Amino acid sequence: MDSSNSLIGELKLQVRKLEKSDKSKGFIELLQQLTVCDSISEKEFEERFQEINSYGNDHIVCVIEDDQSGKIIATGSVFIERKFIRNCGKVGHIEDVVVDSTARERQLGKKIIGFLTDHAHSMGCYKVILDCSIENKAFYEKCGFKQKEIQMVKYFS
Amino acid sequence: MDSSNSLIGELKLQVRKLEKSDKSKGFIELLQQLTVCDSISEKEFEERFQEINSYGNDHIVCVIEDDQSGKIIATGSVFIERKFIRNCGKVGHIEDVVVDSTARERQLGKKIIGFLTDHAHSMGCYKVILDCSIENKAFYEKCGFKQKEIQMVKYFS
Repeated sequence: MDSSNSLIGELKLQVRKLEKSDKSKGFIELLQQLTVCDSISEKEFEERFQEINSYGNDHIVCVIEDDQSGKIIATGSVFIERKFIRNCGKVGHIEDVVVDSTARERQLGKKIIGFLTDHAHSMGCYKVILDCSIENKAFYEKCGFKQKEIQMVKYFS
Repeated sequence: MDSSNSLIGELKLQVRKLEKSDKSKGFIELLQQLTVCDSISEKEFEERFQEINSYGNDHIVCVIEDDQSGKIIATGSVFIERKFIRNCGKVGHIEDVVVDSTARERQLGKKIIGFLTDHAHSMGCYKVILDCSIENKAFYEKCGFKQKEIQMVKYFS
C-alpha cells in the first residue's frame, strides 16, 4: 500500500455507534484485551445492548471497524450523569476504552476519546471525566485531560 | 440531652431517598458546601428530580434529615452503569457526597456511603467506585474502599 492508499485507509476508519452485529466482529474479544470478560451468549449480549440503547443519548458505546478485516479494533463508552450541583449540571463519564493490540500507533484511541468527548459536550455536560492507570496518564493529557482526583474502589466479588 | 437520648437521636437519623419537598429543607444549600451551585428554581429542581427518578433504581439520591431542625444534613448519590465487560457486569458510581459542616463527627458520611454501597450491591454490581481528593482518602478507607486509579478531567466551561 503506498502512502496515499494508507491515508485513505485511515480516513475510512470512522467512529460509529455499536451495532448488534458487532458481536460477531470481535467486539467481545476486543474487550477481553481490557479486562476479564468471558464469552457472552447472543441473548446476554442483546439484552445488555437493549438496556444501554434504552438510555438513548445518555449512554453511548462507540466502535471503530477495520474495513480491511471487518473486525472491531477500538471501542469506548460514555454515559451522561444528571446532577443537582453546578446548577443542575451534567457530567460525561468515559469508560472501557480499548484499542486492539495490533492496531496501536494509529491514533485510534484519540479518535475514540474525541468522539466520546464531543458527545458529552453536545449533551450539555460541563465536564467529562474518566479513571485510568498512571501508565495511561500521558495519553489522556494528549487528549486534553488533566489529572484531578484519585479513584477509590470497593469490590463485592 | 443525656447519652441515651443522644443515642435515640442518632438512631432516628435514617438515610432515605430524596423527596421533592427536600428542596425547602436546605438540600441545595447543603450541596453548595460541596461545590458551585447557584440557587435553582422550583421548576428546574422538579425537572431534574423527575429525570433522575425516571432511572428508577439505576440512579438514587439519598439524604439524612435532622429531625430536630428539619434540615437535610447529609446527601450522596449512586448510579448504576451497565457494561459489557465482566460478563455484562454492573458498576455503581458514587457521586456528590456531602455532610453539613455543623454535623460532622456523627458518622453521617459513613451512613450515606453504607446506604449507597448497599444499594449498588443489591443491584448486582461487582464493584462500586468514586473519585475523591487526597484529603478524603482516609475517610473512604474507613468505609472499606481502596485507592486504585487516577481521575482525569476535561472541562468545557
